[in-house]
Amino acid sequence: MSIVSVIEKIARDAKDAARLLKNAMRREKDEALFLMAARLIEQGDSIKAENTKDLTLAREKGLSSAMIDRLTLDDKTIHAMADGLKEVAALPDPVGEVTGMWKRPNGLSVGRVRIPLGVIGFIYESRPNVTVDAASLCLKSGNSVVLKGGSEAIHSNLILSDILRGALREVGLPQEAIQVIPTTDREAVGILLTQEDHVDIIIPRGGEGLIRFVTKNSRIPVLKHYKGVCHVYVDEFADLEMASDVSFNAKVQRPGVCNAMETMLVHQAVTNDFLPPMVTRLQQGGVEIRGCEKTVGLIPGLKKAEPEDWPAEFLDLILAVRIVSNMDEALDHIGQYGSNHTEAIITKDYNRSQRFLAEVDASVVLVNASTRFSDGNQLGLGAEIGINTSKLHAFGPMGLEELTTTKFIVYGDGQIRS
Amino acid sequence: MSIVSVIEKIARDAKDAARLLKNAMRREKDEALFLMAARLIEQGDSIKAENTKDLTLAREKGLSSAMIDRLTLDDKTIHAMADGLKEVAALPDPVGEVTGMWKRPNGLSVGRVRIPLGVIGFIYESRPNVTVDAASLCLKSGNSVVLKGGSEAIHSNLILSDILRGALREVGLPQEAIQVIPTTDREAVGILLTQEDHVDIIIPRGGEGLIRFVTKNSRIPVLKHYKGVCHVYVDEFADLEMASDVSFNAKVQRPGVCNAMETMLVHQAVTNDFLPPMVTRLQQGGVEIRGCEKTVGLIPGLKKAEPEDWPAEFLDLILAVRIVSNMDEALDHIGQYGSNHTEAIITKDYNRSQRFLAEVDASVVLVNASTRFSDGNQLGLGAEIGINTSKLHAFGPMGLEELTTTKFIVYGDGQIRS
Repeated sequence: MSIVSVIEKIARDAKDAARLLKNAMRREKDEALFLMAARLIEQGDSIKAENTKDLTLAREKGLSSAMIDRLTLDDKTIHAMADGLKEVAALPDPVGEVTGMWKRPNGLSVGRVRIPLGVIGFIYESRPNVTVDAASLCLKSGNSVVLKGGSEAIHSNLILSDILRGALREVGLPQEAIQVIPTTDREAVGILLTQEDHVDIIIPRGGEGLIRFVTKNSRIPVLKHYKGVCHVYVDEFADLEMASDVSFNAKVQRPGVCNAMETMLVHQAVTNDFLPPMVTRLQQGGVEIRGCEKTVGLIPGLKKAEPEDWPAEFLDLILAVRIVSNMDEALDHIGQYGSNHTEAIITKDYNRSQRFLAEVDASVVLVNASTRFSDGNQLGLGAEIGINTSKLHAFGPMGLEELTTTKFIVYGDGQIRS
Repeated sequence: MSIVSVIEKIARDAKDAARLLKNAMRREKDEALFLMAARLIEQGDSIKAENTKDLTLAREKGLSSAMIDRLTLDDKTIHAMADGLKEVAALPDPVGEVTGMWKRPNGLSVGRVRIPLGVIGFIYESRPNVTVDAASLCLKSGNSVVLKGGSEAIHSNLILSDILRGALREVGLPQEAIQVIPTTDREAVGILLTQEDHVDIIIPRGGEGLIRFVTKNSRIPVLKHYKGVCHVYVDEFADLEMASDVSFNAKVQRPGVCNAMETMLVHQAVTNDFLPPMVTRLQQGGVEIRGCEKTVGLIPGLKKAEPEDWPAEFLDLILAVRIVSNMDEALDHIGQYGSNHTEAIITKDYNRSQRFLAEVDASVVLVNASTRFSDGNQLGLGAEIGINTSKLHAFGPMGLEELTTTKFIVYGDGQIRS
């Protein structure tokens, strides 16, 4: 079979499976999730053997040690995947929830009930544990998933999906609800993106290049964010100790992720008190500072920020710092360089906090808290399938509910329209 | 200026206006809506004069009398537009609603607040009153709108938008929140569809050809339905008098709209009692029947349905009729030929009603009521900007809320992530 036929069949089978899965009971789905967890542990040696094939090829190709690290499945990561499955089983089932029901003047009862989206196309890069995460969230929300992982993880992804599919079969759910595209052919992504008759949404997760490719070539709606250029604005009325702790956490606690701070904006009224010790603390934490002209003037020896640093997602221990004359300048900076992802203000002033919450156009806006909380788990959604920074369907971190939609149900007793 | 530059400027101005409009108070928006209503009545003569230009051109081009009728603005339609504006003013403002707020274990308060989508591109065909409808719903939901109406209505659309924009200016809201693309150039739609940096969603309303063109060429997400192929399934356990009344209403009350019934499915157990009088009643209502083989066998003289009749949206007094052996056959028929729009069952049986509601994949599923209720007003949304039969963002009739999304707001007191 040609690769086009293979992917068309996968998409068609996924759609058929979705039709069966949409009315599956929570009990069946949870049973499958628990069984998957057990089977992953039982078959740990086989998983590690397949993973070794990927690792050997990766080393031959000269992949970086960070890449090798992300690719590796050991007992610890296998147990973590199994725990993740059990956590998803423990989450409430969004499907079937009646989100509202009301009576019309003519006696009709009109309600909205939550239903799965259908088929999710999930495109991601190296980590094979994402295969299990994504599959479990799609299953719990009643959706089929077609998974296209990184080519360097193909052996790992295939054995993981074999195990998950086996569990589906064991509990009598359609195994085609979880499918990994069994090829490393680069064309595969492009072909998946044209299966608009069978795939309902595409969620890509990875670097900006991958996301741009997917968005440009997809005939299917895409839920995605390109990057997270997150700011912390330290206001003139900030508690400076809090500002230091939050900013340090936002930059240093995990710099390689999309909700880490990339630029700090500091009101000029507090720069003298705040900035020198803050810069020292960040530098002691290993952070390279790139300052605006005023910052460099205040603290000699700092690297000067270039124009390309303001829109940059460093994903590293690098921080751009700008001193602003007032809150308007901070809001303008965020409006110009922000990525609609996550923005934070540190202030004790009531009006400033309210203004920041209202005016900043980002999916998560925080007062006096670290940008690192912009995450489905941390915000209380229970789990996260991805983050969307376009406003359609869901804005921000997406959990199980965001993998569903609602349809109208109407109970009548013979009503006709006049 | 080239047409590309004109439309780029319109899109950019719309985005700037959206930034101002998103935090407009309900009072200001309602004031603008009431003023628009008053100005439409006051300037009725100018509206009719501009409309006459369109009508003259339309008659020269030999447009059908139905088209001319839809294009005509007289005192009655002008008053209806003004009333529509006041009705939208009376609807609650969706913007700013906190749809939920909860406390996290670390003390963070996390909430979701409703915000406008931004800029709506609205593409439609002949009726100029849609200009006012669409503009009012976008304004009330805090969105800018770029309107591209039918070329035959250009003079009417331009004077209507002039009046609406004047009212925006009078109350101090940005007039660029409402813009009509001032050209009949056919390229304009294609150019609008590439303004993805400034336009957030596209809503097309019109014939299937227009919708397919828009969907194929848009780089912006599209909320749309291609067509409504709606079924009424008359179950073996139907109240036959109710089945007759509902089916007659669904077909005859307004046959030219997307929520009219196009195919009636009848359980074979009730065909002898139900179908002959039903066919007579429909024929007396002017309906042409196209029957399946069994139907034609039962009632001689009927036209036989061709394969292309089952997926057809007749939008006319034509009805396809099929006798099914059981409910599975009815569900399979709807699965194959339905358009995910609106489906109804007539039954007195509890289990059948529940099964139909759960299994039918349509945005509106009704028990014992006419498909004609599938409409934002009728379902209680207050107004309707369009109907979406893809599952993303909103499924089914869309009101003001569906022109918004939510963002996360987080109140902390110095929380950092560990």
